[in-house]
Amino acid sequence: MAIVLGHNNYGKAETRVVRVRRDGERHELTDLNVSVALAGNLTESHHSGDNANVLPTDTQKNTVYAFAREFGIDSIEEYGLRLARHFVDTQPSLTRSRVSIEEYSWNRLGPHSFARAGDGVRTATVTYDGDQAWVVSGVTDLVLLNSTDSEFHGFVRDRYTTLAETRDRILATAVTASWRHAGAEGNWTTSYDEAREALVRAFVSTYSLSLQQTLYAMGRAVLYGRPELVEVRLSLPNKHHFLVDLEPFGLDNPGEVFVAADRPYGLIEGTVLRDDAPPPGFAWALDAGREEL
Amino acid sequence: MAIVLGHNNYGKAETRVVRVRRDGERHELTDLNVSVALAGNLTESHHSGDNANVLPTDTQKNTVYAFAREFGIDSIEEYGLRLARHFVDTQPSLTRSRVSIEEYSWNRLGPHSFARAGDGVRTATVTYDGDQAWVVSGVTDLVLLNSTDSEFHGFVRDRYTTLAETRDRILATAVTASWRHAGAEGNWTTSYDEAREALVRAFVSTYSLSLQQTLYAMGRAVLYGRPELVEVRLSLPNKHHFLVDLEPFGLDNPGEVFVAADRPYGLIEGTVLRDDAPPPGFAWALDAGREEL
Amino acid sequence: MAIVLGHNNYGKAETRVVRVRRDGERHELTDLNVSVALAGNLTESHHSGDNANVLPTDTQKNTVYAFAREFGIDSIEEYGLRLARHFVDTQPSLTRSRVSIEEYSWNRLGPHSFARAGDGVRTATVTYDGDQAWVVSGVTDLVLLNSTDSEFHGFVRDRYTTLAETRDRILATAVTASWRHAGAEGNWTTSYDEAREALVRAFVSTYSLSLQQTLYAMGRAVLYGRPELVEVRLSLPNKHHFLVDLEPFGLDNPGEVFVAADRPYGLIEGTVLRDDAPPPGFAWALDAGREEL
Amino acid sequence: MAIVLGHNNYGKAETRVVRVRRDGERHELTDLNVSVALAGNLTESHHSGDNANVLPTDTQKNTVYAFAREFGIDSIEEYGLRLARHFVDTQPSLTRSRVSIEEYSWNRLGPHSFARAGDGVRTATVTYDGDQAWVVSGVTDLVLLNSTDSEFHGFVRDRYTTLAETRDRILATAVTASWRHAGAEGNWTTSYDEAREALVRAFVSTYSLSLQQTLYAMGRAVLYGRPELVEVRLSLPNKHHFLVDLEPFGLDNPGEVFVAADRPYGLIEGTVLRDDAPPPGFAWALDAGREEL
Repeated sequence: MAIVLGHNNYGKAETRVVRVRRDGERHELTDLNVSVALAGNLTESHHSGDNANVLPTDTQKNTVYAFAREFGIDSIEEYGLRLARHFVDTQPSLTRSRVSIEEYSWNRLGPHSFARAGDGVRTATVTYDGDQAWVVSGVTDLVLLNSTDSEFHGFVRDRYTTLAETRDRILATAVTASWRHAGAEGNWTTSYDEAREALVRAFVSTYSLSLQQTLYAMGRAVLYGRPELVEVRLSLPNKHHFLVDLEPFGLDNPGEVFVAADRPYGLIEGTVLRDDAPPPGFAWALDAGREEL
Repeated sequence: MAIVLGHNNYGKAETRVVRVRRDGERHELTDLNVSVALAGNLTESHHSGDNANVLPTDTQKNTVYAFAREFGIDSIEEYGLRLARHFVDTQPSLTRSRVSIEEYSWNRLGPHSFARAGDGVRTATVTYDGDQAWVVSGVTDLVLLNSTDSEFHGFVRDRYTTLAETRDRILATAVTASWRHAGAEGNWTTSYDEAREALVRAFVSTYSLSLQQTLYAMGRAVLYGRPELVEVRLSLPNKHHFLVDLEPFGLDNPGEVFVAADRPYGLIEGTVLRDDAPPPGFAWALDAGREEL
Repeated sequence: MAIVLGHNNYGKAETRVVRVRRDGERHELTDLNVSVALAGNLTESHHSGDNANVLPTDTQKNTVYAFAREFGIDSIEEYGLRLARHFVDTQPSLTRSRVSIEEYSWNRLGPHSFARAGDGVRTATVTYDGDQAWVVSGVTDLVLLNSTDSEFHGFVRDRYTTLAETRDRILATAVTASWRHAGAEGNWTTSYDEAREALVRAFVSTYSLSLQQTLYAMGRAVLYGRPELVEVRLSLPNKHHFLVDLEPFGLDNPGEVFVAADRPYGLIEGTVLRDDAPPPGFAWALDAGREEL
Repeated sequence: MAIVLGHNNYGKAETRVVRVRRDGERHELTDLNVSVALAGNLTESHHSGDNANVLPTDTQKNTVYAFAREFGIDSIEEYGLRLARHFVDTQPSLTRSRVSIEEYSWNRLGPHSFARAGDGVRTATVTYDGDQAWVVSGVTDLVLLNSTDSEFHGFVRDRYTTLAETRDRILATAVTASWRHAGAEGNWTTSYDEAREALVRAFVSTYSLSLQQTLYAMGRAVLYGRPELVEVRLSLPNKHHFLVDLEPFGLDNPGEVFVAADRPYGLIEGTVLRDDAPPPGFAWALDAGREEL
C-alpha cells in the first residue's frame, strides 16, 4: 500500500477587476470577480516543495489585470477563453485550466455614473485542456417570486408527514442556473440575455404544481430558445413563505400575510439537456472522470 | 457606591413579514424586516426576573403580523407609526417605543410575478414617547459609482503620508442615508421617492474634490427639494478602486483597469440640517439625552 | 432658513494589521481590525472640496501600520490611546478622534503556530478630545448557552399574546458587551480577562427568570469585580431554541430536541453602572451632546 | 432532437437541530445543521407536477427531528447513516440519498453551560444507494497560521510575473478537508478526533516550501495514522499576509507587521489517497458517473 497524490489544482481566486471603457464622454463599466484554477504536473511541488512548474497565483492575478487592458473585455466568456487558453498554451507543465467569472451589473445613471443593480449576477466558467475549450454561462442570485399560481399536493405521506396540501401558495426562489454551450464560439452576450430572459419568462408563466415542474420548464425554455446551448443545470432553493395563522387574534388570512423563513429551505436541483448533447468533457468539473479511476 | 440599572430596552428584532395585496388578478407585494424596541419600567425584570411589566417579544412579533392584516401597509412610515403608538398606548409600563423597518424592493414581472431588485433598501425608524412621534426615513445599500469627475488633492501631508494626488479617480460608495421629518404626517412614499432621487442626482452631478463635498451636496439636495425634511445623516464608505500598475508588463493604464478593494475603506459620515430644525428629541436614539445624566 | 453642516467625522475603517513578535524561537501573534474616525474643522472640505485640513484616510492606515512597528501593541487599549492622541495632537484642525479595534484571538499550537479561536472577539474604543481620553473595552461574538435553569412566565398578556409560559428552556445569546473605564491608564489585559470572566461566570451561575435578569447579573458582576470600571452596556440577542413538537410522530420530547431559529430573535439591551460614575463625555459617541443642540 | 431530464435531486437543506442529553445534572449538547438530498424516479414531478413519488422536504425535516429523539445522535456519521438509509429503504421511488451534516462545537462551562467554540466545524456526508453506503468525514473553517518556517521561491517566471521570492513568510489557511472511510462502520468520533489532530500536527510541523507541500503532508498524515481512511481531499485558501513596506516612514520591518488581505487569495486543492483505495462510488457526488453519459 502506498499513499499517492490524486487530482489537484491551484490558482488565484476572486480577483476583483473593474474596467472603464472611455468613449469620449460616455463610459462603459465592467465589474468582475475572476477565479483561476490550473492543473498539470505539480507533483514535485506537493512532494518536495520544488516549484519549478508553479506559475505563481500572483502572476495569474497580474495576467487577469493585464489582459483587461491588452484585449479588453467584450464578454466574460471571451475574456475567460483568452485567459484559460493563455495559461495552458504558455506553460508546458499545465494540462488544464479553468476560469470562473462573476459579472456584477450596474444601471446607467449618466454618461459616467452608475448604480449597482442587484437583480442577479452573470457568470461564466471556461475550461480548456490544451485542445478543446468548454464554455458554461449562467446566472446566480436572481430572486424570483410568484404570489399565486402555485400548488403543492398529491405527495407521499409517511409516518413523519404533517404538511398540509395547498392549492395556493407563494413560490419563491433564488435562481442559480448554468448552461453549457455546444461550442466555444458565439455571440455571448446575446446568448446570455436571451437565455436569462427565457428562464425568467418560464418561471413567470408556469402554473406550478411543484418547484420541480417549474425547474424543468425553465431549463426547457432555455434550450428551446437557444440552439447553441445543449444542457442546463439549475439549483433552486425553495424560499418558503408560510401563511401566518392569525386566528388567535380573531383575524382571517386569505393568502395575505406571510412569514419569509430563512432556514431550513427546500433545495431542488436538476439538469435538462438535449438527447444529442455532446459529452460534457471537463465543462462541469476540472477533474471529470476521476471518480472512475 | 451602588450599582444601578441605566437605560434599557428590549424587543423582537428582524421579523420578516411579506404581504400580498390581491386586487383581482393584479397583486402588490410588500416585503419587510421589522424590529421593535421598547423601553419603560422594566427594573423588576432586571432585578428579580419579575416579568409583570414585560410584553413578550413573541407578542410583538404577533402584533407585527396582525397589523399587516388589520390595517395593511400603505407605507413603512405609517405602519411603523401605528405599531410604535400601539405598544406605548396599550401598555402602561412602557414609556418609549421604536420601530425600525427595512423594505426590500421588487420589480414587477407580471400581474403576480416579481424579481427582487437589489438597488438599495428603503428604511424607516419611528420613535414614540406616548406624546410625540418622530419619523426618520432613509435608504441603505444603494451603491453608486462615478467613473470620472472626481479628484483628490491639496490634502495635509505628514510623516506618514504617501498618497499621490489625483486629478481623475473612480468615486464609489454604498449610501446609507437617513432623513428626519419635521412632523409625523406626510405623503411618505412620495417623500421617499423624491428624497432618494435627490440623493442620486446630487451624487451624479457633483464634480467632486472630496467625498465630503459629495456628501454635503447630497444632503443639501434632499433638504432643498423636500420642505418636510429637516435633517439628513449620511454614512458613505469610500469604496476604493485603485488603478493597477501595468508598467511591469509594458502596458499603460489610462484610467482603465482598476482593482476594487474590500478593506480597508474610507468612511465619511456627516449631517446636513436646516438651522431652524426642531430639536431631534428621540428621533435618532431611544436613549437620547442620557449622556448628560 | 439656511442649510448647514452638522456633526461630521471621517477616517479609515477596517485596517487589518497582524503583528508577529519574535522572541527567538517563540513568536507572539496579534491580529487586529482597526478603524479610525476623526472630527474637526472640516467644513471647507464639505463646502468646496478644499482639503487643506484633511489628513487622508490612507495616511491614517499608514500610521496604524507604522505605530505597530514603532511602539508595538501591548494591548489594544494602549495602542488605541496612542493612535487617538497622535491624530489630534499633531493635526491642528482636528478636535476629536476615535479608534475602534477588534482583536481576534488565536490558540497556540507551537512556538510559531496558531489556530484561530472563535470564542469571542476582544474590542476597545478609545476617544480623545485633545484633553481627555475615554477608554471602553469589551467583547463581541461570545456565544453562550445554558441548557436549563431558565424560565419565562408571569409576563403581560394582551390580545396578541399566544406564548406559553415555560419553567425550563434553553437560554442562549451572543454577547456584545462594552465597559467604560474610569480613567485612561490601567492594566488593560488583566482588566479585560477578568471582566470577560465575570460576564461568563454570571451567565453560567444565574438561575434566570428573564434574559433581562441575566443581563443585569452580568453587568453587576463586572462592576463588582473591577473597581476601575464604571459602566457596562450589554446587547444580548435571545437566540431562540424552540422545543420541537414530536407528538404527531408518537414521540414525547422532554426538553431534548430543539430547533435553533435564525430570525426573528429577541434583543435585550441594557446598561449597568455605578451611581457615582463620572459623566461619560465622548466615551460612547464621538458626537455626544449634539442631540441637545 | 429531444429535450430530456437529466440527473436531479431534491431535499431539505439546513435543518438546525439542537439536542440536549440530560444525564441528571450534567447535560451533553449536540448542535447540528442537517441537509438532505434525495434522488430517484421523480420524472413526473418535473414533467407534469405529479407528486406521487415526492416525499415532501417538510417530511424530511420532521424526520431529522424525530430521529434525534428516537435514536439519539452518537456521532454525525451514525446519525447520517440512519437517515440516509431510512429514506431510500422506506420510499420505493427513491434510489439514492445523501445526508450532509455540520456539527458546531461548544466548550463546557458548567454542568449545563456551554460556550460556542469557533475553531472549526466537524462535517460528515453519508451517501446511500439502497445497497452500499459511503461515509466521508471532515472539518471546515479551521484557521491555521505559521508565522515562520514557510518559503516560496524557484517558481516559474513569465512576462506577467512580478512576485519576489521569499525565504520567510506567514503561511495561513482556512482548512476544508474531507476524508473517505473504507467502510460504513467505525468508531466515528475517535476517527474524527485523530484525523483532525493529524491534519493540525502536519500543518504545524511541516517546514513549507509551498502550500502544496503542506497540503500533501496533511493528507498523508491523516492516511498514515488512520487505516480506516482511504482518501483525503483538501481545499486550502492561501490567506495572504503581506509584509508592510515601512521604509517611507524611516522604519524597517523585519517580518513583524503584516497586512491580512481579504481578496484575492490563492486556492490550493488536492487529493491524497491510498493506491489501493476502493472506487469512490457515490462517496463524493450523488451524480457520480454522469459526466460519462
